[in-house]
Amino acid sequence: MINISLPDGSVKQMENGVTPMDVAKSISEGLARNVISAKFNNETVETSTPLTTDGSIVLFTWNNDEGKEAFRHSSSHVLAQALLELYPGIKLTIGPAIENGFYYDVDTGDHVISDKDFKRIEDKMLEIARGKHDFKMRSVSKAEALDKYKAEGNEYKVELIENLEDGTITFCDHDSFTDLCRGGHIPNTGIIKAVKIMSVAGAYWRGDENKPQLTRVYGTSFPKQKDLKQYLELLEEAKKRDHRKLGKELELFTFSQKVGQGLPLWLPKGAALRERLENFLKDAQKKAGYEMVVSPHIAQKELYVTSGHYAKYGEDSFQPINTPADGEEFLLKPMNCPHHCEMYNARPWSYKELPKRYAEFGTVYRYEQSGELHGLTRVRGFTQDDAHIFCTPDQIDYEFKNVIDLVLYVFGSLGFENFTAQVSLRDPEKPEKYIGSEENWEKAENAILNAAKEKGLNYVVETGEAAFYGPKLDFMVKDALGRSWQLGTIQVDYNLPERFELSYKGSDNELHRPVMIHRAPFGSMERFIAILLEHTGGNFPLWLMPEQAIILTLSEKYEKYAKKVLNLLENHEIRALADNRSETMGKKIRDAEMQKIPFMIIVGEQEEKDGTISVRRHGGENMGSMTVDAFAKAVQTEVEATIKTFEV
Amino acid sequence: MINISLPDGSVKQMENGVTPMDVAKSISEGLARNVISAKFNNETVETSTPLTTDGSIVLFTWNNDEGKEAFRHSSSHVLAQALLELYPGIKLTIGPAIENGFYYDVDTGDHVISDKDFKRIEDKMLEIARGKHDFKMRSVSKAEALDKYKAEGNEYKVELIENLEDGTITFCDHDSFTDLCRGGHIPNTGIIKAVKIMSVAGAYWRGDENKPQLTRVYGTSFPKQKDLKQYLELLEEAKKRDHRKLGKELELFTFSQKVGQGLPLWLPKGAALRERLENFLKDAQKKAGYEMVVSPHIAQKELYVTSGHYAKYGEDSFQPINTPADGEEFLLKPMNCPHHCEMYNARPWSYKELPKRYAEFGTVYRYEQSGELHGLTRVRGFTQDDAHIFCTPDQIDYEFKNVIDLVLYVFGSLGFENFTAQVSLRDPEKPEKYIGSEENWEKAENAILNAAKEKGLNYVVETGEAAFYGPKLDFMVKDALGRSWQLGTIQVDYNLPERFELSYKGSDNELHRPVMIHRAPFGSMERFIAILLEHTGGNFPLWLMPEQAIILTLSEKYEKYAKKVLNLLENHEIRALADNRSETMGKKIRDAEMQKIPFMIIVGEQEEKDGTISVRRHGGENMGSMTVDAFAKAVQTEVEATIKTFEV
Repeated sequence: MINISLPDGSVKQMENGVTPMDVAKSISEGLARNVISAKFNNETVETSTPLTTDGSIVLFTWNNDEGKEAFRHSSSHVLAQALLELYPGIKLTIGPAIENGFYYDVDTGDHVISDKDFKRIEDKMLEIARGKHDFKMRSVSKAEALDKYKAEGNEYKVELIENLEDGTITFCDHDSFTDLCRGGHIPNTGIIKAVKIMSVAGAYWRGDENKPQLTRVYGTSFPKQKDLKQYLELLEEAKKRDHRKLGKELELFTFSQKVGQGLPLWLPKGAALRERLENFLKDAQKKAGYEMVVSPHIAQKELYVTSGHYAKYGEDSFQPINTPADGEEFLLKPMNCPHHCEMYNARPWSYKELPKRYAEFGTVYRYEQSGELHGLTRVRGFTQDDAHIFCTPDQIDYEFKNVIDLVLYVFGSLGFENFTAQVSLRDPEKPEKYIGSEENWEKAENAILNAAKEKGLNYVVETGEAAFYGPKLDFMVKDALGRSWQLGTIQVDYNLPERFELSYKGSDNELHRPVMIHRAPFGSMERFIAILLEHTGGNFPLWLMPEQAIILTLSEKYEKYAKKVLNLLENHEIRALADNRSETMGKKIRDAEMQKIPFMIIVGEQEEKDGTISVRRHGGENMGSMTVDAFAKAVQTEVEATIKTFEV
Repeated sequence: MINISLPDGSVKQMENGVTPMDVAKSISEGLARNVISAKFNNETVETSTPLTTDGSIVLFTWNNDEGKEAFRHSSSHVLAQALLELYPGIKLTIGPAIENGFYYDVDTGDHVISDKDFKRIEDKMLEIARGKHDFKMRSVSKAEALDKYKAEGNEYKVELIENLEDGTITFCDHDSFTDLCRGGHIPNTGIIKAVKIMSVAGAYWRGDENKPQLTRVYGTSFPKQKDLKQYLELLEEAKKRDHRKLGKELELFTFSQKVGQGLPLWLPKGAALRERLENFLKDAQKKAGYEMVVSPHIAQKELYVTSGHYAKYGEDSFQPINTPADGEEFLLKPMNCPHHCEMYNARPWSYKELPKRYAEFGTVYRYEQSGELHGLTRVRGFTQDDAHIFCTPDQIDYEFKNVIDLVLYVFGSLGFENFTAQVSLRDPEKPEKYIGSEENWEKAENAILNAAKEKGLNYVVETGEAAFYGPKLDFMVKDALGRSWQLGTIQVDYNLPERFELSYKGSDNELHRPVMIHRAPFGSMERFIAILLEHTGGNFPLWLMPEQAIILTLSEKYEKYAKKVLNLLENHEIRALADNRSETMGKKIRDAEMQKIPFMIIVGEQEEKDGTISVRRHGGENMGSMTVDAFAKAVQTEVEATIKTFEV
């Protein structure tokens, strides 16, 4: 008999040689139906692997990341078999599971695989899957393994096997197909009910452009047809909401080859959007006691040597800027904090004057390789909604709550309702890893935990995840497509105050080091706007829309009335414009829909006569005829429902 | 007889050998009393020089720059004589007139000249001046000149004479003193009625630090004691208003050695001031149809190669920024225009959509040698209130008027009442120097002249002063100390549209090049704020003050009432703060005066009882007791008197 520990802490005595599937069955038939993979003593095993020692087991279903990985890994075996049957003579190389699917790299020889073949491959895969073939692992000797692939003339697998460290080499069999494999499969192919070949692409063997080019076949698979359908719809929606596409359509920003990759140029509508977001945060920050400052975008290298940023990032960053005389060396600013420290140092402070909260929409520049750049989410220059709070250790508690309030206010006003938080604390067993006194860490960690609890956050605590210079709190936000984004970090810092020798005079008349808190609710304007674009699909909250209403004239005759309506709307501080083009109403509505303008105001004979407007909402809802005043009231009500006044 | 032409075009026949002074006398006794120097046939002559050919004469008095220069040049001779008499054995080198005075560089040998000696030097100078010694020029041979200074052992003058091109060498005598001199003196020393030694400083012979160190004695002189007094008062006032001093006192900005010279850090009050100025201009620009854009602070070198800025400034600028991979080269942005051109190029335009007016508070970086840096007026990074108007040639007329309106609105709202304009046109005789068609230049120049006239500007026209790429209009503003500053340039540009191949589709359905207009009413935020600080001495127009009022509590008992008053003021959108320190009222008032806060609101028992406030204006005026409402009304009235709403 062996002892099997379960995740809930209970221990089962079972016969030596039981399989994970047996364990599942011993718990419930329902679980057994859903278990598709397992770990034993923290190593991946098959659900059919006999267990022969004491140990702890974790069983996974489709709902676990580990379950999904086994599912996709197994699917790639089925893909390989399908390809081999459809294209005899092709050579398999490697085929891992990836996020949301899997791929297989194959040397297709004379065959060409194109999107016309996808259906055929999918059908073949499903045909194999329906055979309900068990995945079975077996150990082979290195010689045996080499023999198989040498006989097939597959130099790729031969190379892989030759490079394997000596030890157990394993094959996985299912149906008539065998592959070199480390293991981690679902019980049998029958569980795979839905497959989709997503794309083909070129890939070099071992990622080396001097080696042969292979064909990479991307696929995905699901246990239910319905799940695949939902996934494809989500992909379709994500494509529609791609911020690069929307940014172009809505004329928010552009890129220029001459200006350079990763350096967005904000066009008028985008710049207005940024400014509105900045003003929104500025107003709240002002109430929360922040003061705006402005710092340059370069500084002498010495500043970043002092801060430690140069030692850490210098070589991988934009290189120093030399001068024609004076022999000075400057660096593009990668962070605003050293500048704010120097501002703090411009004069002495008393504890009575703290906290000082310096805020800046500070544009920073960080080098990213061109292959890493992506729209507004990975750029080389971006504007942080940065602030640094210089306070006494006793003030951290209040400041943390204050910042959490601000972050929640930002999320609420922008329609992010689904978020969690993570508190990162130090590893209490390795105090030598951290800078700052025991007493101060204790204070700061308690302050963060206390603030997270008091503000009712849904949070997890990660011990040992704190930076060496202080504990922190991060927010993870789910967008409308269910994707998670890290937004809004609050970070305690004992390091920079030390490096910049910051001080304040305490009530004891002695000099003390202040604590610094870094925080940025948006993170960066660029990334935040990208996320907001994809979250809302361009239908921003009404208060934020570059244009809230567009007046569509039924014909040139109503231009004058349109002008009058426009003036009235402006008096109500509604951002509006008029489309007086001599186009059909259908075309005007389509264009306004494309621009995502929330309200279309149609004016023609009837409206002019009655002194009213006919209102149509973006998306199609007809709101009927009303006065401009009534419309303004409706707009105001909607705005006030999303954006409240920030109260400290 | 010879013919002497006068500046008014008249010609006088006079005897050969008459002097400029004779000419003056022939015109009027009054003129003769005031003439102190002259030019004949465009060459500087003495007022006693006999004229022996036909020619044109210009006579100068103290009121001309040329007269002042002769006056100061002559004063430096008197200074030299005085120094020689007071410090026997010193060696004279050179002693030119400079702006507002003169200096003489002397090798003092064992003597030391310090500020304790200034009075003695001044007295000696005045004593000499009172002798009414005539300045008399005479020609000497090179040998004779060398003999004199070799005999004195003055190696400096010997070196000067040896380096003189052969030709006439002249000495100037007055009293017992002789100096090597080119000429250009006042008639005699008696005119010098007031002198002041300003300072002494070290200076290297010929400015070469490997050569002997000399003592530079700075002085100034005037024809009336009253003028000297006024000048010294002005200097005193300028010192008090030095923006570097005020910037520190008012905590507007700071510099940090680590961040680097010439890179201001804007502290909260300075950043708020900047933002208020920016918002003021933004509001006006919005009404004038501008759209804000945002561009990065770096771009690929290629962008500035295209714009031509690299060829022109590249080597003297901040050097290119290399990257660790990708081999790209970036430059700090010295100008916003190339970026705006690329934004314009992001999509095609129709003539119906023009003009496009892209505005940006764009921070640019330009290298200046450290010795050239000065507070906020010469910096290495500054923010331009930049805008570029892309329009058709026919729209220049309207656009120029529109920009002039904006500039005048800016000047008016900020208390600059004294300004002139200069229109710079091309040299019609050198058409090959300019880019752009004859027709377009004609249009643009007429548009500017027309706009300047129609807007009632006090302007001069300078032919041949246009840039190669277009005509322009500059404003020169006089500040409260009578100093002139160039503020607000409007520049037509045919060059960048060509280099960036900008286009729009005209009504003829063909592609055309737009014209670009560059303009910046402030110029740069840094320089403008420096000028504004010195113009106002920190007493900004009320609408702009970082803090408009400060509440001074008579004792801690009135803190609660002060808080109530503060809230009321905030409701009235008056920027105020409270000074609740336990200091005396005298100290609180002095501190508020120092901070230049326009209104001090004193609250004590009486005020709390009556629900009123006692108001004291910056500078001392007691405005008496009033309600907060009445005070708010007074503030509002004053604000509205300086800053009007901008109307297009």
